[in-house]
Amino acid sequence: MKLNITVEIEYYAFTAGTIILNIHPSKNTQQHIITENFQTEPFIHLESLTVQNNQLTRFELLEGNQVKVGYQASVENHYQFNDYQNIAETAIINLPPDVLPYLYPSRYCQSDKLFRFAANLFGAYINPFEKVCAISNWIFNNILYISGSSNTQTTALDTITERAGVCRDFAHLGIALCRALTIPARYFTGYALQLQPPDFHACFEAYIGNNWVLFDATRLVPLNGMVKIANGVDAADTAVANIFGGINFISMNVACELAEDADSPFLYYYDALSGLSYI
Amino acid sequence: MKLNITVEIEYYAFTAGTIILNIHPSKNTQQHIITENFQTEPFIHLESLTVQNNQLTRFELLEGNQVKVGYQASVENHYQFNDYQNIAETAIINLPPDVLPYLYPSRYCQSDKLFRFAANLFGAYINPFEKVCAISNWIFNNILYISGSSNTQTTALDTITERAGVCRDFAHLGIALCRALTIPARYFTGYALQLQPPDFHACFEAYIGNNWVLFDATRLVPLNGMVKIANGVDAADTAVANIFGGINFISMNVACELAEDADSPFLYYYDALSGLSYI
Amino acid sequence: MKLNITVEIEYYAFTAGTIILNIHPSKNTQQHIITENFQTEPFIHLESLTVQNNQLTRFELLEGNQVKVGYQASVENHYQFNDYQNIAETAIINLPPDVLPYLYPSRYCQSDKLFRFAANLFGAYINPFEKVCAISNWIFNNILYISGSSNTQTTALDTITERAGVCRDFAHLGIALCRALTIPARYFTGYALQLQPPDFHACFEAYIGNNWVLFDATRLVPLNGMVKIANGVDAADTAVANIFGGINFISMNVACELAEDADSPFLYYYDALSGLSYI
Amino acid sequence: MKLNITVEIEYYAFTAGTIILNIHPSKNTQQHIITENFQTEPFIHLESLTVQNNQLTRFELLEGNQVKVGYQASVENHYQFNDYQNIAETAIINLPPDVLPYLYPSRYCQSDKLFRFAANLFGAYINPFEKVCAISNWIFNNILYISGSSNTQTTALDTITERAGVCRDFAHLGIALCRALTIPARYFTGYALQLQPPDFHACFEAYIGNNWVLFDATRLVPLNGMVKIANGVDAADTAVANIFGGINFISMNVACELAEDADSPFLYYYDALSGLSYI
Repeated sequence: MKLNITVEIEYYAFTAGTIILNIHPSKNTQQHIITENFQTEPFIHLESLTVQNNQLTRFELLEGNQVKVGYQASVENHYQFNDYQNIAETAIINLPPDVLPYLYPSRYCQSDKLFRFAANLFGAYINPFEKVCAISNWIFNNILYISGSSNTQTTALDTITERAGVCRDFAHLGIALCRALTIPARYFTGYALQLQPPDFHACFEAYIGNNWVLFDATRLVPLNGMVKIANGVDAADTAVANIFGGINFISMNVACELAEDADSPFLYYYDALSGLSYI
Repeated sequence: MKLNITVEIEYYAFTAGTIILNIHPSKNTQQHIITENFQTEPFIHLESLTVQNNQLTRFELLEGNQVKVGYQASVENHYQFNDYQNIAETAIINLPPDVLPYLYPSRYCQSDKLFRFAANLFGAYINPFEKVCAISNWIFNNILYISGSSNTQTTALDTITERAGVCRDFAHLGIALCRALTIPARYFTGYALQLQPPDFHACFEAYIGNNWVLFDATRLVPLNGMVKIANGVDAADTAVANIFGGINFISMNVACELAEDADSPFLYYYDALSGLSYI
Repeated sequence: MKLNITVEIEYYAFTAGTIILNIHPSKNTQQHIITENFQTEPFIHLESLTVQNNQLTRFELLEGNQVKVGYQASVENHYQFNDYQNIAETAIINLPPDVLPYLYPSRYCQSDKLFRFAANLFGAYINPFEKVCAISNWIFNNILYISGSSNTQTTALDTITERAGVCRDFAHLGIALCRALTIPARYFTGYALQLQPPDFHACFEAYIGNNWVLFDATRLVPLNGMVKIANGVDAADTAVANIFGGINFISMNVACELAEDADSPFLYYYDALSGLSYI
Repeated sequence: MKLNITVEIEYYAFTAGTIILNIHPSKNTQQHIITENFQTEPFIHLESLTVQNNQLTRFELLEGNQVKVGYQASVENHYQFNDYQNIAETAIINLPPDVLPYLYPSRYCQSDKLFRFAANLFGAYINPFEKVCAISNWIFNNILYISGSSNTQTTALDTITERAGVCRDFAHLGIALCRALTIPARYFTGYALQLQPPDFHACFEAYIGNNWVLFDATRLVPLNGMVKIANGVDAADTAVANIFGGINFISMNVACELAEDADSPFLYYYDALSGLSYI
């Protein structure tokens, strides 16, 4: 599916500082960047970095500078459907080494405090795909999506008691519950077709049957309309922007549109025991 | 300096499970493993994994199995002293990409909640080496080392209010305060000469002047008597053992002895503005 | 119903200190103390205090002193059953002034953080008795009773995520959820017939239809076999013992036995919409 | 000293609800209400309640109602100075029964988690007045007064790590640290002369030498220019307004002015070891 992405972000530096942006679609065998363009107004020197497989852009702003960052891309995302009818949980002994770090608790996903909670609610499922679907459904049914109900310090534990959050919090809770059940899970940040209001999106991937299967407990967008920017342990290492110094965020516009006739959007395909994976 | 390491750990599996051990000294240009031997009694199949540059050992235990793991090594650790008399903080724009992940908050080091705390207490230092020394001294002077005063869920925030902890908590607090001041910091786990009672040790490294400089706020051991096992964001991804399934830890013996005449131990060398780095 | 109570507690003072015990059954028109006896060995001066309607005993221990406190009583407890078939919630405007403090959050019952949680799970019930029954049932069904799973700092929020606790935690969670729904609720500490292992017990009372109706989410004992010691906002102001100074608790024995033929024990009477109240 | 108080608060009920106001100066032998007037526009029925010695006003608002509450009073406050040069801590055994509840932890003052913190920083002071002065000074010197930096869920533990707050947070931290050192302490809410911007004020009282001595770690106003409204364990049971139902706060004006020539304002009198008490 081809998608057109447009981003415009504006910053003002009341003291000098540095910004590290994480807005490039990840490049891999399944996601092709057909065209892309990154520009700033006024012109400033940009540096491209690769950190843990994610492509970042770093630049400095001098005191008093205002800058408008623009990014446009045309992306072709490929995804696969896999049938998980007869899938078994991957034993720890068989997990690939690079998957192991996604079993551990992280800043916003304190899975180490949720063993009993996760076991009580989801422990009875045998099929790991059904198990993670049950987690995702439980989050959708029990946590209210309310803009502004959480902040950058809100964790999965908070979301369980406060019962409200945004996509970031839905993803963190999904990750924490998977890890508490020894299912590797990671944060996914990207662009999402039809997201209203337009913004960056976050959801999560669980490692099932040698695939990273995508889950979105918010149910706000079709699963096959995503463009992956980055994976990470949680929002701590996958933020869209890390800002150092006295820099104010002024405004942002994000758009993710169909470039041509789309595939049919796949939503809540879970009942079919068929899961979607990007790479 | 040559050090001899001996480890003996015993586990009992009341249900089948998997253990991932993180006890191998890291191998790099500055740390040579002269000899090493890893054996289990009874014999079980071991798998060697490399995860984020750390060397792990993975094995399964069947229900009812008891296993004694033994590891012996002779290690030559090299370290360097650098003078930080005239060092300046590395600007964010100049940090190498692989250092950036150590700026972010993590499970046990919620630096995002400590900006004002860290700035109030340590913000006035210009020299970053002096700044991290001040952090390490503050921890030593304000946090009591009390065995059993914390657990695997204790975080840097807890340690600030509870004012007690063990080496792991001292390291977490040091890391959190560095990151809150935009100094990259990471967890260091290893063997330590003369540690009483004998155990694995944890301390932290701060990125200063293109080096990862070692700090040990516990002041329990000489800084140049360490053998590095692993680095990580905190204890979450650097645990000595990750145990999955119903496996009980039964006993452990760790020893780290001089293999020959040692260098003079370097302790609290901080006043001299000279810092020690392993690689 | 007549019950015989026996308590034996032993303390050792390694430095001088003061103990305030809260073990006297409360005296009121519905609970008669037929006989009682309080003694210490060796003899020490005891002072009787009344604090917020609860009767306390205060005494000092000198350094090196060991004391055995003994208390025996024969108590007749009266209770009433009320039918709550057609009960409506008492509007805030009609709550008696002395009930209002039991609407506020307290140390272990952070009702102010549970508004949405409580409304989601229990908001649909119209009848307040059914609502509190639903709360009590939910706690019984979702929280495991595990001795040693919590400590004196565990709060209702912790219990929601950790899913385990003891009677004190069950009571705190019940109270927090009631208050979050604007139903006054208070802590009840007392003696309980047939409690195994023998100990002091804690449960909670909700203010429904001008009565303080008793609920015990642990379901460990019959509701009509309780002897009330004290009410309070939570365990913070209703502890069995407050100890100041270097005094060690050594041992305790508590017994609560039938003095004669008992009423039939009432357990889980909730379905009948008939609630039990002490005074 | 005579003070004139004026309060104007406006509410709008988008659904019916109840308000309980806690704005009446407390009446006692040391504080005389010379004149007072309470009115609403439009007229609504008001009910006067006494809860734990505090005088409250309760009233209902119907859906769609907007009401302006006005209160004016002329108050003569008396206070005493006491010399604490040679004061000793009151032993627990000698504390009056009604003072004991102010030793326990409460919603916003988790003194049970601060024993070591308080002992480390303030344990060395012998004179309890000096000890509480040291607490108050430490708060003033280490916590920034920043409007909007905290909310109604912020606790003393949060304030220690976040290092910012408003008068309510300064009071909570003072109370928590006193209680952690076994000094009874309670919340004080009232009117304060010269407070900028005009608002209700909060500070704390510590029980020293049989007096409740006033401390204000914010240092925003003279200690002898206060009119006490209420005491409580913390802000949970002493809120200026408790609102039940869908009622919005619209606006508030508070003024506290001198009615005639004032006593000289007493500020930071602590060095003199002379403390001020209202009753």
